[in-house]
Amino acid sequence: MKKHISLSVSILASLLLVSAGCIAQGNARYINPFIGTDHMGHTFPGAVVPFGMVQLSPDTDTVPYSSGHGYNPDVYRYCAGYQFTDPTIVGFSHTHLHGTGHSDLGDFLLMPVTGDPKLNPGTASNPESGYRSRYDKKTEIAQAGYYAATLTDYSIRAELTVTPRVGIHQYTFEGDQPGALILDMVHGIYNYDGKVIWSSLRVVNDTLVTGYRQTNGWARERFVYFAMSFSKPITEYSLRNEEKEIYGGFWRRWEMNRNFPERSGRKVKAWFKFGLKQSDKLLVKMALSPVSEQGALQNLMTEAPHGSFDSYRAAAFRAWDIEANRLTIEATDEQKVVFYTALYHSLIHPSIYADVDGRYRGLDHEIHQGNGFTNYSIFSLWDTFRALHPWLTLMYPAESSDMVNSVLAHYDQSIHSILPVWSHYANDNWCMIGYHAVPVIADAWVKGIRGFDGQKALKAMVQSASYRPYEGVGDYMDKGYVTAEKSGSSASVTLEYAYDDYTISRMAVALGDSSIAKVFRDRSLNFKNLFDPATRFMRARTNNGNFVTPFDALATHGMGYIEGNAWTYSLFVPQAPEELIALMGGNKKFLPHLDSLFTMHLPEKYYANTEDIAAVGLMGNYVHGNEPGHHIPYLYNFAGKPSATQEVVRKILTTMYHNSPSGLCGNDDCGQMSAWYLFSSLGFYPFCPGTDKYELGAPLFKSASISLPGGKLLEIDAPNLSPKNIYVKRVVLNGKTLNRHWITHEEIMQGGTLLFETTARPSN
Amino acid sequence: MKKHISLSVSILASLLLVSAGCIAQGNARYINPFIGTDHMGHTFPGAVVPFGMVQLSPDTDTVPYSSGHGYNPDVYRYCAGYQFTDPTIVGFSHTHLHGTGHSDLGDFLLMPVTGDPKLNPGTASNPESGYRSRYDKKTEIAQAGYYAATLTDYSIRAELTVTPRVGIHQYTFEGDQPGALILDMVHGIYNYDGKVIWSSLRVVNDTLVTGYRQTNGWARERFVYFAMSFSKPITEYSLRNEEKEIYGGFWRRWEMNRNFPERSGRKVKAWFKFGLKQSDKLLVKMALSPVSEQGALQNLMTEAPHGSFDSYRAAAFRAWDIEANRLTIEATDEQKVVFYTALYHSLIHPSIYADVDGRYRGLDHEIHQGNGFTNYSIFSLWDTFRALHPWLTLMYPAESSDMVNSVLAHYDQSIHSILPVWSHYANDNWCMIGYHAVPVIADAWVKGIRGFDGQKALKAMVQSASYRPYEGVGDYMDKGYVTAEKSGSSASVTLEYAYDDYTISRMAVALGDSSIAKVFRDRSLNFKNLFDPATRFMRARTNNGNFVTPFDALATHGMGYIEGNAWTYSLFVPQAPEELIALMGGNKKFLPHLDSLFTMHLPEKYYANTEDIAAVGLMGNYVHGNEPGHHIPYLYNFAGKPSATQEVVRKILTTMYHNSPSGLCGNDDCGQMSAWYLFSSLGFYPFCPGTDKYELGAPLFKSASISLPGGKLLEIDAPNLSPKNIYVKRVVLNGKTLNRHWITHEEIMQGGTLLFETTARPSN
Repeated sequence: MKKHISLSVSILASLLLVSAGCIAQGNARYINPFIGTDHMGHTFPGAVVPFGMVQLSPDTDTVPYSSGHGYNPDVYRYCAGYQFTDPTIVGFSHTHLHGTGHSDLGDFLLMPVTGDPKLNPGTASNPESGYRSRYDKKTEIAQAGYYAATLTDYSIRAELTVTPRVGIHQYTFEGDQPGALILDMVHGIYNYDGKVIWSSLRVVNDTLVTGYRQTNGWARERFVYFAMSFSKPITEYSLRNEEKEIYGGFWRRWEMNRNFPERSGRKVKAWFKFGLKQSDKLLVKMALSPVSEQGALQNLMTEAPHGSFDSYRAAAFRAWDIEANRLTIEATDEQKVVFYTALYHSLIHPSIYADVDGRYRGLDHEIHQGNGFTNYSIFSLWDTFRALHPWLTLMYPAESSDMVNSVLAHYDQSIHSILPVWSHYANDNWCMIGYHAVPVIADAWVKGIRGFDGQKALKAMVQSASYRPYEGVGDYMDKGYVTAEKSGSSASVTLEYAYDDYTISRMAVALGDSSIAKVFRDRSLNFKNLFDPATRFMRARTNNGNFVTPFDALATHGMGYIEGNAWTYSLFVPQAPEELIALMGGNKKFLPHLDSLFTMHLPEKYYANTEDIAAVGLMGNYVHGNEPGHHIPYLYNFAGKPSATQEVVRKILTTMYHNSPSGLCGNDDCGQMSAWYLFSSLGFYPFCPGTDKYELGAPLFKSASISLPGGKLLEIDAPNLSPKNIYVKRVVLNGKTLNRHWITHEEIMQGGTLLFETTARPSN
Repeated sequence: MKKHISLSVSILASLLLVSAGCIAQGNARYINPFIGTDHMGHTFPGAVVPFGMVQLSPDTDTVPYSSGHGYNPDVYRYCAGYQFTDPTIVGFSHTHLHGTGHSDLGDFLLMPVTGDPKLNPGTASNPESGYRSRYDKKTEIAQAGYYAATLTDYSIRAELTVTPRVGIHQYTFEGDQPGALILDMVHGIYNYDGKVIWSSLRVVNDTLVTGYRQTNGWARERFVYFAMSFSKPITEYSLRNEEKEIYGGFWRRWEMNRNFPERSGRKVKAWFKFGLKQSDKLLVKMALSPVSEQGALQNLMTEAPHGSFDSYRAAAFRAWDIEANRLTIEATDEQKVVFYTALYHSLIHPSIYADVDGRYRGLDHEIHQGNGFTNYSIFSLWDTFRALHPWLTLMYPAESSDMVNSVLAHYDQSIHSILPVWSHYANDNWCMIGYHAVPVIADAWVKGIRGFDGQKALKAMVQSASYRPYEGVGDYMDKGYVTAEKSGSSASVTLEYAYDDYTISRMAVALGDSSIAKVFRDRSLNFKNLFDPATRFMRARTNNGNFVTPFDALATHGMGYIEGNAWTYSLFVPQAPEELIALMGGNKKFLPHLDSLFTMHLPEKYYANTEDIAAVGLMGNYVHGNEPGHHIPYLYNFAGKPSATQEVVRKILTTMYHNSPSGLCGNDDCGQMSAWYLFSSLGFYPFCPGTDKYELGAPLFKSASISLPGGKLLEIDAPNLSPKNIYVKRVVLNGKTLNRHWITHEEIMQGGTLLFETTARPSN
């Protein structure tokens, strides 16, 4: 049922675009930003352009971080500020994380209202108690670069679009009450008293307001600046600070609450009036900057100087259309919506984190000039090294080069002199494990991305992999594994370090540094140190070498694992699948083991309290809703049974991705889930990022084409594909049969035709 | 008795300098930074160079802003962080206000300790409970640019010196306990929970630590950055944040409390160890910056790259000596100490507020480049327009030009487009009344200071005087006075506006703008609108024109006055003393009125609760400890009785300024009290800043000479001056008798000899 709602919205959207007659009819029309907005997809439906610094979206609720008894699990529901079934909209804020597993952002909430302005948000059950409004679900539209809804409590039509650095709002006041605009500097995605470190507002003139705030959230000390312009002059305004101000002094002399042009503090809110009457439209443009209010103003004047709302909306749509039109698929509308929305979701993060002049805030609290590159932030690397970054490496070499330069700048600015773990607006929030900037760089380099200093990058990779204070690295270097004493996730950590190390060795080989290559090739075999021949699982070990007990191979947490159990993590050896299979007894033992993973019964207790695995994301004990297993379906390729890869991958593609607000089986993790879909549906997957190979699966579409960077076209044909003919008999690249289960990056980049001959019967 | 203590310290200091044999024996040796450190002088004894950005000084206590029942009056005692009679030293912090009436600053407290480092300050009554220490008063030395004391609880000799932007500490560990250094980022001069908005530390390497903090105190949002280097490598350290951190997340993975190189939060403290043993010296250099940590590092490397403590100490002393040697007086040692300490106190604020590269933080939160000028902050203009700025105009034209450029930059950056009221580290704390940047600029311009844009300055002055929302300016422009409804200090405010307006008219005349000159000449007569013929006082009036009742001419607060009662404020017409006298009935009535002021009995209830008027600062109902009356002693000149001016001024000079920790009769107000002393003791005073005239008094010394900017010398001779011969019979300038009670700026600047013939009997 939910599926129908959003599909009809999407079709309605397309029709509107047609009737508007001004927006190109490319593939971007299939993008449905509502996918993942229900339950745990953690996506937002608002407006964004590819890699845009602004994600302008409605927030339907915010939640206190603590419920009085510690962490409030509802915080997790609101990672992107929006839940599809919520009855009210609190307002529209300018920054959102796409599909993360932790909340943050929600900067600078604007809300158009009528009548006497209230400065508190009110509650969903009693929206009249504050400025929030009910909204008419039937009028809600989300398209590529555009969002709209009618706020029924105020009879206001709210429309949103964006440029890379500017959020653009158009509010049409349809009722007969005088209108106003609320700006809430306290609002944020998850709240606690003290989250706003400081904030400030300045009414520069009657159409320009600037300000900034600092927050202490997931990012420890995050600064965001803004400059906001209006299409109508402010006639009256009020800037308030709702905290008790200790020192009043001569400030008390001013009439602070009416038309006083500056206010700062920890609880700053404001309203603005513009003499708005019935059917008036108010255009609001809010530019952001990581640098300063002047930087934001410069972004505003450069990106959105004087166009109409519709012109920016059309430009945002075009930006998506250009990207979507690089890929064509022969598919049903439903499949197209899923596919192009996956593309959309894969191009949100990392996001630009720099002003139009290239300046940005660094990890060292300094303002830096991005010399020769655009700086990016929001690197959820534990998630995205797997398929998202390889997707960008393949399709977005210029952006990928900028991203590598960005993580190298982070390394330069790091007090630890290491690469980011989770780069978050000039902070590292250190989320999850490993040093996975390493495979991102290696993947870029071995696939020919240039524009950064390879030797420096290698040095940064080695240094990050040798920083002893970082989660058990000292142990790992001394003993070949991270001890259970040093990390609660020591098995997962060891396995991921070993993989990362392999990619350092690949980078070193590419740069001709054989001694580094050897050291890290050797380290990459450390996965063997965890193998327990008795249970045939990779297990955490203590300082004295013993395996940690008790041991439950199905438990995701404790016992040395994190976000994946022993079944999943024991298969995390993408750098050496043949050795893994050998270790586990060869194909004969390995294949049934792998089959069991996909078919066994996983008792509910093992995932009931695991936030980011919806039951729909499970296939036996394989968890698609979380990342550590994303390569596992392709392991059959190495065990001599590629047909099983083809079968499992197809099953995941068709059962775990839908055109529905609840169409994702877990949070999208900054696009990783979507990038998995893109690759897999096209028939190949970066099994071991940092090498130049992709494992072959089977395409989901009879035909697809990819417009590659450099101008070549790769056509992917599977002419006899059908719901029954899902097994690959033969793969032919430009007329030559590929007698192997993989294809190289170079082969793909040369374009031509990749033919999958399919059949109903597995040939192996 | 107290006087003896500090005098002996001063003599001891001089002897030490002699025995060290390395420091010039100039007039700076008479500087006694202890003057004003007892009770309410609000001076600090620590190290500073002329106009230096760093004021490195011991803090003997800090006080919570609120005592549980609102404002804690003890806060006032600790405006400069130090009270001479306190038994303990909490530590040494890098920023201090000189002689203000409100507390703030105290950034980055360092404290050397031995044994197990404690991170709380402890209490004066139980110093063992924290890191503070008792100190041996006999070992305490304060000289120009140098401070030292022995911390008896730790057997540590602490010595401080400075460059303009760097605080330099030398700690000699005399005991046998291992030493350590505390850095307390929470410490501040006056505290409340939340005063530290945010702070951050980074251990860059084993001899360099950087960081910053923001505070919400007297300045609403103040940023200070630092870079600190050590002469010995850190062997071990701990950075702590003592607040409850809401989001721990993956930060918890790190071992945060030992050798973890970054920490931020609202309650950050740290200790550092260096393997210090008995008789080791630790040299610590901490540079500040208003811009960034890199800016601080740049300041450090430029100003204090590799010298010894003694070399910086000698340089700081030399910097003072150069200034002190520009003035010579024939006087007793006691008089010289008072005089040169007044000079010292007049050259602390305004202070440089810019990095060595000219960059600084602006009122608009942006980083600016000071193009062609060095930016200054700490302008306590209500105090300092009177004599301090005229002193700088006379003696420091280059710095005065920079200061005018600084207030013009403030105007450019002001959201109100007005000049500063109290410029405070890229904030305006709005303290006190009037728009007294106006007379500062006018005074500079009419006295020939250039290097700033005169037309722009005039525009800024006019705009500041026409900004209707500012304390009753709208009223004032409409009605000719500020109504009691708009300001609780409407009489004081009206009188000060009228004076300020006069200086705008002088500026306009100098620039040839006769229409602005006329408008503001007319406005300068607004004082007449407050004159009540019945009481013969200037009185507050309500909107309907009535005088405010009840009326008590002796009350300092309420009834329309602030920091001065009706007696004092009714005489505040420096722009038109002749008209004032006429208004009050001519000399015949005016002279006895003035005599009464100086002789009447002021009942204690009128000053008992008035913080900044020590009883010693009273002469009848004349209050020298506060500023509004500072011109009054010179009013006799206009009433035909200059001998009374000579008598009263001499009495103030000799009874209200002493070489003693309690030697000031009120807080020095950023040097205003001291500048009054300098002018008056030399025999002339800027009665109406913004004009080119000085009123003549009588010098305190038989002979004095001033080395003027431009190289000329002015000799001031009073050969027959004696305790009896205090009245001026004749004033002869370069051989020509001055048949008037004033002298012009130009006459002074031409140098030569100003001869005062004195006699025992008043000639008028």
